[in-house]
Amino acid sequence: MNMISYALLGVILGISGVIYAVYLAVWVLRQDPGNEKMRFISQAIATGARAYLFRQYRTLAVLLVILAVLILVAIDMPRRTFGLTALAFIVGALGSMLAGYLGMYVTTRSASRVAQAAATGGMGKALLVSWRAGAVMGLSLASIALLLISGFYLVFRSVLPDDWAVPLVALGFGASLVTLFMRVGGGIYTKAADLGADLVGKVEAGIPEDDPRNPGVIADNVGDNVGDVAGMAADVYESYIVTVTAAIFLAAILGLPTQFIEAIILFAALALVATFAGVNLLKTTGVKHPLSSISLAIYATIGLSVVLFFIGAFTLGLDSTKALALAATTSLGAVIAPLIVKITDYYTSYNYGPVRKIAEQAKISPATVIITGYGVGLMSAIPVIAVIVAVLGISYMIGYYTVPVSGFGELSKYLAGIFGTAMASVGLLVVAGIIITADSYGPVSDNAGGVVEMAGLPDEVREITDVLDSVGNTTKATTKGYAIASAALAALVLFIALIFEIVYSASKILGKGIVDMISESLSGLQLINANVLIGAFLGVALVYFFSSRTLEAVGRTAMEIVEEIRRQFREKPGILEWKEQPDYARVVDIATRRALGEFLIPGLAAIVLPLITGLLLGWNALAGLIMGAIVAGVPRALLMANAGGAWDNAKKYIEIQGLKKTEMHKAAVIGDTVGDPMKDTVGPSLNPLIKVLNTLSVVFTYVIVSTNIALGIWPSGLLPF
Amino acid sequence: MNMISYALLGVILGISGVIYAVYLAVWVLRQDPGNEKMRFISQAIATGARAYLFRQYRTLAVLLVILAVLILVAIDMPRRTFGLTALAFIVGALGSMLAGYLGMYVTTRSASRVAQAAATGGMGKALLVSWRAGAVMGLSLASIALLLISGFYLVFRSVLPDDWAVPLVALGFGASLVTLFMRVGGGIYTKAADLGADLVGKVEAGIPEDDPRNPGVIADNVGDNVGDVAGMAADVYESYIVTVTAAIFLAAILGLPTQFIEAIILFAALALVATFAGVNLLKTTGVKHPLSSISLAIYATIGLSVVLFFIGAFTLGLDSTKALALAATTSLGAVIAPLIVKITDYYTSYNYGPVRKIAEQAKISPATVIITGYGVGLMSAIPVIAVIVAVLGISYMIGYYTVPVSGFGELSKYLAGIFGTAMASVGLLVVAGIIITADSYGPVSDNAGGVVEMAGLPDEVREITDVLDSVGNTTKATTKGYAIASAALAALVLFIALIFEIVYSASKILGKGIVDMISESLSGLQLINANVLIGAFLGVALVYFFSSRTLEAVGRTAMEIVEEIRRQFREKPGILEWKEQPDYARVVDIATRRALGEFLIPGLAAIVLPLITGLLLGWNALAGLIMGAIVAGVPRALLMANAGGAWDNAKKYIEIQGLKKTEMHKAAVIGDTVGDPMKDTVGPSLNPLIKVLNTLSVVFTYVIVSTNIALGIWPSGLLPF
Repeated sequence: MNMISYALLGVILGISGVIYAVYLAVWVLRQDPGNEKMRFISQAIATGARAYLFRQYRTLAVLLVILAVLILVAIDMPRRTFGLTALAFIVGALGSMLAGYLGMYVTTRSASRVAQAAATGGMGKALLVSWRAGAVMGLSLASIALLLISGFYLVFRSVLPDDWAVPLVALGFGASLVTLFMRVGGGIYTKAADLGADLVGKVEAGIPEDDPRNPGVIADNVGDNVGDVAGMAADVYESYIVTVTAAIFLAAILGLPTQFIEAIILFAALALVATFAGVNLLKTTGVKHPLSSISLAIYATIGLSVVLFFIGAFTLGLDSTKALALAATTSLGAVIAPLIVKITDYYTSYNYGPVRKIAEQAKISPATVIITGYGVGLMSAIPVIAVIVAVLGISYMIGYYTVPVSGFGELSKYLAGIFGTAMASVGLLVVAGIIITADSYGPVSDNAGGVVEMAGLPDEVREITDVLDSVGNTTKATTKGYAIASAALAALVLFIALIFEIVYSASKILGKGIVDMISESLSGLQLINANVLIGAFLGVALVYFFSSRTLEAVGRTAMEIVEEIRRQFREKPGILEWKEQPDYARVVDIATRRALGEFLIPGLAAIVLPLITGLLLGWNALAGLIMGAIVAGVPRALLMANAGGAWDNAKKYIEIQGLKKTEMHKAAVIGDTVGDPMKDTVGPSLNPLIKVLNTLSVVFTYVIVSTNIALGIWPSGLLPF
Repeated sequence: MNMISYALLGVILGISGVIYAVYLAVWVLRQDPGNEKMRFISQAIATGARAYLFRQYRTLAVLLVILAVLILVAIDMPRRTFGLTALAFIVGALGSMLAGYLGMYVTTRSASRVAQAAATGGMGKALLVSWRAGAVMGLSLASIALLLISGFYLVFRSVLPDDWAVPLVALGFGASLVTLFMRVGGGIYTKAADLGADLVGKVEAGIPEDDPRNPGVIADNVGDNVGDVAGMAADVYESYIVTVTAAIFLAAILGLPTQFIEAIILFAALALVATFAGVNLLKTTGVKHPLSSISLAIYATIGLSVVLFFIGAFTLGLDSTKALALAATTSLGAVIAPLIVKITDYYTSYNYGPVRKIAEQAKISPATVIITGYGVGLMSAIPVIAVIVAVLGISYMIGYYTVPVSGFGELSKYLAGIFGTAMASVGLLVVAGIIITADSYGPVSDNAGGVVEMAGLPDEVREITDVLDSVGNTTKATTKGYAIASAALAALVLFIALIFEIVYSASKILGKGIVDMISESLSGLQLINANVLIGAFLGVALVYFFSSRTLEAVGRTAMEIVEEIRRQFREKPGILEWKEQPDYARVVDIATRRALGEFLIPGLAAIVLPLITGLLLGWNALAGLIMGAIVAGVPRALLMANAGGAWDNAKKYIEIQGLKKTEMHKAAVIGDTVGDPMKDTVGPSLNPLIKVLNTLSVVFTYVIVSTNIALGIWPSGLLPF
């Protein structure tokens, strides 16, 4: 087969995946949505979530148009790329929005159906409905991403035979940027609403979670959908796009034979085929422990993917060493997905020591719960880093000895090694479909539990949704670890791609040969270069600024929500006695307004700081900044996600021992509350942050390098070397 | 004057400083130590603290002897340096021990005397006694450090005319290593005892802080002395030694004219002279706000130092541009000391917005107190990083254009710039005498307050010591910011020195010229080199491991102390009714045993991980590791120190509003308790950690480079480039 065939295969499988997802969606929507009350509640949540998303998209639209014009004027016009960079940016951004919308749509529609399935068909039926709802997400994300990448690759490659790689990365930039804002805005919304509803409802008024008397209950459920669901959907979609385009981009600028690019698209397509099979493998009848069924489906999908990679590699027409090397590095990435899931599970599930140790501290004080949980979070980052480092080392060595890169002087073999790592990161991401299926299943059952509670269904039904929900909490927590690890590998690969795009642009602008340009410019990229060191500190500072702003935004927004809920309870005392209807919409409105007010500054910082650094301090300070942000951001994201997950489950561990309403439980609740914005606002935002820095820099490389040259600070940076 | 004269000046002023410190110590000890009960309490604290320190030193002795033998065999013998590297290592280590001991001695002896001064002479007298006690510390640390450096420089330079620089750094290695263990062990001790005593005493038994009925009260006070006092004394002493020797080392390996080395010693000596004046400038009579008196004394000392730097620079016989440049870079470092103090004050004092914002959140829940405080901590790192980056940039530029480095090919001017930064770091550290005076004054008044409480002195007396104590809390908090910023600059300078020591060693071992060696080896030090990237992740992982272990150690140790105190209250119910005597010694013993049990693993990790990385993954992975640890460790240290300080003062802010014993106060207390181990255990340990990594690597460079060459991984590192 030739180049076009594989890309066409990607397009065709992408379309098939979308069709399959639509089929599953129709199946889910055909399920009984339950009684009128259940439908009313679902409707209220769906309306709030849609209202939030649309307002968020409207707010973002202005920024996206400004950036698209900027890209058109500053990049497409001087590079003569017919506006395709700007177009790809917009399409990538729209894709993220669509992913978020889809996630929200499916989850809100499915919740009452899962609740009804639990009421009428028991555990097996409820599991099936929620799993298929998750599969709608998983399949459509992976399929749309594959479709976009293959499609754009086909188009760009024919329209711009020599210059198609940067526009392709712009697809990733659009996707990352929208995801960043969705993560921050949704993260602030969900945790502020959760915190506000719980603090007044559970703590002050003493009513249970999801109680319909709580004026914040709809906002809380809306938050789950705009934060956890829409956010995670956009996040993994974005990681997929960025990783696969980064690998293709790297293959292109390294001038690798077309088979290497074909291999990337082929493997992505094969993993999608395996995912088709995997979503059907879930055992639902007579299941008592849904988690093991789900794990089995994941393992089967990954196992099948690996087999397909090895078979597929031999159809590429490469010699067998190269084919084996490509299949091996990609498989390496795919198999660490469950490994990272396991590590995350160890640190965040109450079946193991770390969470129990935290629960134990609840006997002493909330303070020691927090100290110990924070310690667990710190420690949990270490094995994940070890896995990332090991994958980097092994895939680098395989690539170094097998990938045929030439024409880059002494760096040729190095770049071959990095391409090996790029394949590993592709392997990690192309199995995203099944991981996201398992992840999306979580909020669906969580929402179903909410519907059961609010609609006043019997306790047995709540028990079923509780089991499903607790499994969902595990899949949600472990997906975070997966998302972070994949972001780390993707960012490393994209970082190297960025450096070479910079060198390429400089060699074009200055009209010098690439090998000369490499040795000239790399002198500016020494670890000891003062610009690099300053940049690295700026990168860490950006991560800190970003974390601080988003963390405090949750507190500020929650405070307004708390005041509103208190006001309603005070002014309408009938609410608590079921005599008056609370005003859900006002709380939804406050959360929406505040979340959107808070998400601009951190988001803009992520755009403005790297641009200014690159333009004025120099390209090498920008490289330092990105590396500083990766090195500081990845472990911090793990810390936040896992400490939060561990606190959450320490609380649950105390609850299942029947110790609810004790001092010990109170201490654990405080830990859980501290962890909430860490795991659902800050941690998840750091992933797209790292990738925005990278993709933004690739897209704007041309302007950055030209400005550096014009200012006379190329290649040394502002501080002379 | 010639080289010897300046070094002799250093020796003479060092000795004068020691004499002056002894004079002040005698003055303090001549003050009335109060009644028998006060003397008894002081005695008990002093005994416990001495017992802990001696046990700690004995535990360390084994490790130090092993390391000294290792240095002797692996470094001194092949380099033929007559065992001087091992000797310097041991002397540096003993110096840190002495500094710690002195700090503990002065504080424990002064506490009852300050209490008595407050009782008989009022605020003015109490301030004078506690300030002079602080000055004993400040002066003796700065003087001993200057004496050791000048003395060893004189000796080494005559005995080893060509090879004296590495042994000089070994002085710093010994100092950092002991400080690291003292910070970790003391930090665990002090916070576990504090937490344990407060949780059972204040929270469960409802008795006030420092109440003599609490079996943990003596351990708590011992902890203040072995943690805050001995730890901070050793920390700043170590930073001083490392920074000044790093600058001298850099001047030596760059082959700068001797005047540049003389300048370093001269400036250190002049700053000491300014400190002699500064400690006498404190206004004590009729003082209402001791903080402004203290700030004035600090500003005066720094102003005088700057004037002396500019005058002194012109005695060096350099041309006026170079003299001005040296004085300017050093002054730049000196003047940022109060700037960093101000920044820290803004984020940690209740006179400003950030702390009040935290206190406001106490109205909602302990969880929002913690979230907001953590956010404040994250944000507080940013202006400090900005100052560090600005100083780095400016001093680099001054050095770049004025310092005469040649013989290093294209890197000569770069190294000149780095020497400029080295001078700025020297400027920041040589004013340490006055900063430490202000800092040590804090625990003295804190202990005095404890004596007043335990001895049952009247409330007016407690009010005086409370005012002094609250000022002391501010100076203590701000000194942490100073210590971290100075560690960051020192580490950056030492890092570059390390790289060049590695290149030098390789050029000697391989018999190649230095310019060729630079261009050959620097290819391994690209930011994009896979070994460097892996090393950077390992460095961050080390910081996380270290933070996690020390944080959780506090929780574990506190738990044992809690159980012991509960046991005593249970088995001897007479204690609470003042009828039975609590067993203080048992709690002291538990804290001592556990703290020493917990400090080995993190400390050994800081030695073993860099050595293994350097030997097996390669010198460039080691460089990545150190840079990763600096970039991740410095902001984390600021975060931990400032969040902790902010929580502490948010609690105090609520207390001064008369809201003690409210729900709001309880929430703030939880924040304070979370912050305690962050600010007093983890944060302070990260400083010496960074410097141990650096100095250890310099000392073991010869072995690391030889092994890399023998393994065939020089200069590319384990992963081929």
